[in-house]
Amino acid sequence: MTRFALTLEWDGRPFMGWQRQNHGPSVQQALEEAARSVTGEDVIAHAAGRTDAGVHALAMRAHVEIAKPIAPFRLMEALNARMRPHPVAVLACEAVADDWHARFSCVGRHYEYRIVNRRAPLTFEAGLAWRIAAELDADAMHRAAQVLVGLHDFTTFRSIHCQSASPVKTLDRLDVSRELDRVVVRASARSFLHHQVRSMVGCLALVGQGRWTARDVRNALEAKDRQTLGLNAPPDGLYFVRADY
Amino acid sequence: MTRFALTLEWDGRPFMGWQRQNHGPSVQQALEEAARSVTGEDVIAHAAGRTDAGVHALAMRAHVEIAKPIAPFRLMEALNARMRPHPVAVLACEAVADDWHARFSCVGRHYEYRIVNRRAPLTFEAGLAWRIAAELDADAMHRAAQVLVGLHDFTTFRSIHCQSASPVKTLDRLDVSRELDRVVVRASARSFLHHQVRSMVGCLALVGQGRWTARDVRNALEAKDRQTLGLNAPPDGLYFVRADY
Repeated sequence: MTRFALTLEWDGRPFMGWQRQNHGPSVQQALEEAARSVTGEDVIAHAAGRTDAGVHALAMRAHVEIAKPIAPFRLMEALNARMRPHPVAVLACEAVADDWHARFSCVGRHYEYRIVNRRAPLTFEAGLAWRIAAELDADAMHRAAQVLVGLHDFTTFRSIHCQSASPVKTLDRLDVSRELDRVVVRASARSFLHHQVRSMVGCLALVGQGRWTARDVRNALEAKDRQTLGLNAPPDGLYFVRADY
Repeated sequence: MTRFALTLEWDGRPFMGWQRQNHGPSVQQALEEAARSVTGEDVIAHAAGRTDAGVHALAMRAHVEIAKPIAPFRLMEALNARMRPHPVAVLACEAVADDWHARFSCVGRHYEYRIVNRRAPLTFEAGLAWRIAAELDADAMHRAAQVLVGLHDFTTFRSIHCQSASPVKTLDRLDVSRELDRVVVRASARSFLHHQVRSMVGCLALVGQGRWTARDVRNALEAKDRQTLGLNAPPDGLYFVRADY
């Protein structure tokens, strides 16, 4: 068996997320079926993060184990050919050690959340960004975001379906910046809770509109109560950007 | 009657182009039907450029004349509401003088052509860029592009369906630049012939792959013969970027 690390890009719009689901298509299923078609083997794919329905990936990392002898470049090309017409692409493929694990070896995860701040509806980016019509104060959002950086109990910012053993996580970075009508939130941590980035972005969007202050963000964090969450941002704008090993 | 100048963005994938067609949806039709729905009037829309099927616009300019009293902002909002679910958005709207004409007053047109230079198939950008797997030499493309800048007979780079009175045009700018795996061609002129940008980009793509030299581009230009065109690029990567008045 050879273990291959894959770098994946996908458009999350048609998918129920990474993980196999009974009720709709998933990226895992698209990849596993392509791998089976290439190798004739029952291949199981593991990813660095299990993204939600509608969430995108620019460079997710995953791994598969394959018995059939095949060169990494050939495997990449064959997977790309077989995954069509699913909007999933293998950007890179390399053979790795047998103990390299896309999920358990990952020591850093980076997300980006894209907001388009304008009146007009989205065209190219429908489903690929969150449009907010009210003008956002990105500087105020950035300042409020710093309340969340560090080691905290993120119970407020965690889905009730979250399966993580503990709500305590260290958030390494939460930056908000604006370029023209685009406001981007960049989040980095060793790992995130389910819905954590979307929950944080939702509250920051309230701050950007002047409906919340940094104080309200702190109060929500300290309440450790999901009911105090201001707003959960839609999946549309969320991108898994990079995994560190 | 009040004349309104509109700034339009559209995703060209579902459209037969700007101009009304019997055989499929057009941006003009989507806009005119929305305007009729807002005003009850038979509105005719004029645009700075008549783009082809599958070609996109980031900031096309157009105008309409409307008898019903309506503020520009209200008109913009109403058009955006009525154009759904077409991927067309009015980004700006202003009242202009009666002799301002989106097409005839336009003194400069700017296009951008987006190439994604990678092995992997496109996901987010399927239909929004031209993927070329073979590595492109963007510097060689840029140097060859300079052969085309200036006053020339562009017969070679003109569709046989082109209705322009003369094939002689002045090309003000044709720049090629690379950023990571993206190669972008930027073209500016007072006006372009039908398929001119796509024809020029097709030949530059041959240069980028080493299959053509700048000398071949010059020979094709000087032949003044459509048969000598190396390649016509697909519409996918073409964006109308800006119009000058």
